[in-house]
Amino acid sequence: MPGTPGRTGRITAVETYDVRFPTSRDLDGSDAMNPDPDYSAAYLVLRTDAGDGLEGHGFSFTIGRGNEVQVAAINALRAHVVGRSVTELCADPASLNRDLVGDSQLRWLGPEKGVMHMAVGAVVNAVWDLAAKRAGKPLWRFLADAEPEWLVSQVDFRYIADALSPDQALELLRRGRAGRAERERELLRRGYPAYTTSPGWLGYSDRKLTRLARAALADGFTQIKLKVGADLADDIRRCRAARAAVGPAVRIAIDANQRWNVTEAIAWTKALAEFDPYWIEEPTSPDDILGHAAIRAAVAPVRVATGEHVQNRIVFKQLLQSGALDVLQIDAARVGGVNENLAILLLAAKFGVPVCPHAGGVGLCELVQHLSMFDYLALSGSTDDRVIEFVDHLHEHFVEPVRIHRGHYRAPRAPGFSAQMHPESIARYTYPDGGFWAAELALTAQEVSV
Amino acid sequence: MPGTPGRTGRITAVETYDVRFPTSRDLDGSDAMNPDPDYSAAYLVLRTDAGDGLEGHGFSFTIGRGNEVQVAAINALRAHVVGRSVTELCADPASLNRDLVGDSQLRWLGPEKGVMHMAVGAVVNAVWDLAAKRAGKPLWRFLADAEPEWLVSQVDFRYIADALSPDQALELLRRGRAGRAERERELLRRGYPAYTTSPGWLGYSDRKLTRLARAALADGFTQIKLKVGADLADDIRRCRAARAAVGPAVRIAIDANQRWNVTEAIAWTKALAEFDPYWIEEPTSPDDILGHAAIRAAVAPVRVATGEHVQNRIVFKQLLQSGALDVLQIDAARVGGVNENLAILLLAAKFGVPVCPHAGGVGLCELVQHLSMFDYLALSGSTDDRVIEFVDHLHEHFVEPVRIHRGHYRAPRAPGFSAQMHPESIARYTYPDGGFWAAELALTAQEVSV
Repeated sequence: MPGTPGRTGRITAVETYDVRFPTSRDLDGSDAMNPDPDYSAAYLVLRTDAGDGLEGHGFSFTIGRGNEVQVAAINALRAHVVGRSVTELCADPASLNRDLVGDSQLRWLGPEKGVMHMAVGAVVNAVWDLAAKRAGKPLWRFLADAEPEWLVSQVDFRYIADALSPDQALELLRRGRAGRAERERELLRRGYPAYTTSPGWLGYSDRKLTRLARAALADGFTQIKLKVGADLADDIRRCRAARAAVGPAVRIAIDANQRWNVTEAIAWTKALAEFDPYWIEEPTSPDDILGHAAIRAAVAPVRVATGEHVQNRIVFKQLLQSGALDVLQIDAARVGGVNENLAILLLAAKFGVPVCPHAGGVGLCELVQHLSMFDYLALSGSTDDRVIEFVDHLHEHFVEPVRIHRGHYRAPRAPGFSAQMHPESIARYTYPDGGFWAAELALTAQEVSV
Repeated sequence: MPGTPGRTGRITAVETYDVRFPTSRDLDGSDAMNPDPDYSAAYLVLRTDAGDGLEGHGFSFTIGRGNEVQVAAINALRAHVVGRSVTELCADPASLNRDLVGDSQLRWLGPEKGVMHMAVGAVVNAVWDLAAKRAGKPLWRFLADAEPEWLVSQVDFRYIADALSPDQALELLRRGRAGRAERERELLRRGYPAYTTSPGWLGYSDRKLTRLARAALADGFTQIKLKVGADLADDIRRCRAARAAVGPAVRIAIDANQRWNVTEAIAWTKALAEFDPYWIEEPTSPDDILGHAAIRAAVAPVRVATGEHVQNRIVFKQLLQSGALDVLQIDAARVGGVNENLAILLLAAKFGVPVCPHAGGVGLCELVQHLSMFDYLALSGSTDDRVIEFVDHLHEHFVEPVRIHRGHYRAPRAPGFSAQMHPESIARYTYPDGGFWAAELALTAQEVSV
């Protein structure tokens, strides 16, 4: 359904914002690799002259310094976006995805990894936000309502065709349709299961950990997560406290945030095995496919999970091919946007590995819930052993914040990708000129001069 | 040998420049993925107040658009560099390398890949340039003269220790010393073997290809390289022409620049096997370790080569562990600088795989020759089946350009890393305000207004 050029609206602007929240003040988000993150977004708005008042919103998530580099990367993509027909773009986001990933000069800066690829993801996600809004549907339903053939057309099979062909993808999506109506009722009634990382930040005291773990239990969560990897004696003490707080039935995942070498990962995980960890997350470098496979073979029955820093579908393909994963953790804003996450969900379905998304940060919960709900309705067909991470940070800055009830994400009702921040939040936390930072930096300058 | 703080000089500035050369005009550098590159450098100068008149020069190589993102990434590292003691920094570049790679907030933008990691490489390389200049030695000799223990201290073993321990690295370097004096005489007499890609750009006519291939032969090269991968019939015709031009004894490498899926790579390479290609380079995504292993198993005796886009030592480790490579192609400006390339050279030595660097672009020949010469003197001990790529582009912009004689790189004599560009070149080709681009952009604006 391509639009008629000239009569339809065009993308008129890609506005970008460097938004940073001062989360390092409270050690929220502290882990073995990230002692003091300032959760940030390289944020963008697609404006159009379609006259329907709709905009596309998207962002890359970063943790502070370098957010300006991420903004520069999004700006570098602007020329590919401005002037496009809104109708054509929303009918085929893959066309833009191809142009962005395929820009032969920008490709040198990746390819398909790091700053440049996250920028592609931010822009592509903003297009999906706009497309879903124009369709009047939340993204999860927009995707789940789409024809399997069209969904397959949205996937870039380059470099993954040896593991997943378009025909196989089509078959998975067709098979995934059976029972969809019943699952949608279930989704609307109960939501999608969540787990919470809020108790487990490394900077928290044991008392705070215990209090928050009990609170999680009372709130209906059946899985929590603890950060580990800085000091083994501390980890043993904290795991013991957490297990004592929640009892034997609640799953406790542990997360090393890439802190270890392969051999360390194996030894450390075994040392914590007595506390029955459900999975060990990011035991080593996200680039080390063979390392994850070796760790998984050694630490079973503890499961191996990774993905929040996995750069693209090509690395996920190999993690699956080499049997390196028990749990695949997509991230909504790390790879090249919805199109590439479709590829990754299809790969996971092909290999039969459950997807438990990474979330938290700024707006990652808001985004990724849509992908898991689509996965449930149209692909995996199950929420067994599937949970979306939940961290109770910064949701107040979003126009459509996630809603959690009895340990489940409620299905969003508003059209779009839930990506939109309040204009007041953007204005206040824009770095370095927004109200909050201008005051902070003036204070720092004063202290220096005194 | 740490310096005495206060008495020694400090790094006073990291100046950055966005330098772009209009190479797309002549289709120099055209290949199956990069039809029209404008070879560019995100260039930096470290200034000090040491009073010795020495500066450190370094750069990331890009191919045009996005060079401003690369410059922004280098700027993001400035705070880690300015104010450091020059003596301490030059005595232990690894200390800076650790701080740059380990910046917990910037790390989120990689980790250790893409724009942010290339920026680390540019800064670290500039430090090595300065260190070698202060020692009054070309970098190859500065490295080859260093004690094995100190060289091992310059390597980050994180995430590679399962394949290479510090003790094993030390052993390799100690063993590599035997016969070094004789090899140095040989190096100074004959140089280091080169091969040339100048005949083989995809945009060239068959006649130009044939003429340049014969010229390469006359110049003493014993290996040339052809770009392939856009059209099989064209590739067959071009390979036939090249083989006819150089005869059976000269090695012809072919280079697909990541154009293919795994199955395509196998079929296409086999279709070109009758022309006896020496290696197939970048047959598929640089991220596809298992894919390269599958291709290598299928296309032998044609060798598999990759590396110019391999993001870091962790991916190289796995390419070696999985038997995916016959030829390892380091790049001086892709990974985290000399420190990480030391790790990669050590890994290659451990696995017995010859290193044949990627070069060309802007200044990559100037840099990487030093690493191969160090490898020969101190580690591999041989130039058998080892060649450095040579492309005859843009050397005139460098203060110490490479010198090629009878198909060999002459060993550089000037102190440093040969990284320094002429100030006039920087001024003329700075984008968008340098003399060349200002005139171009004014012309374009004029055309648009007419």
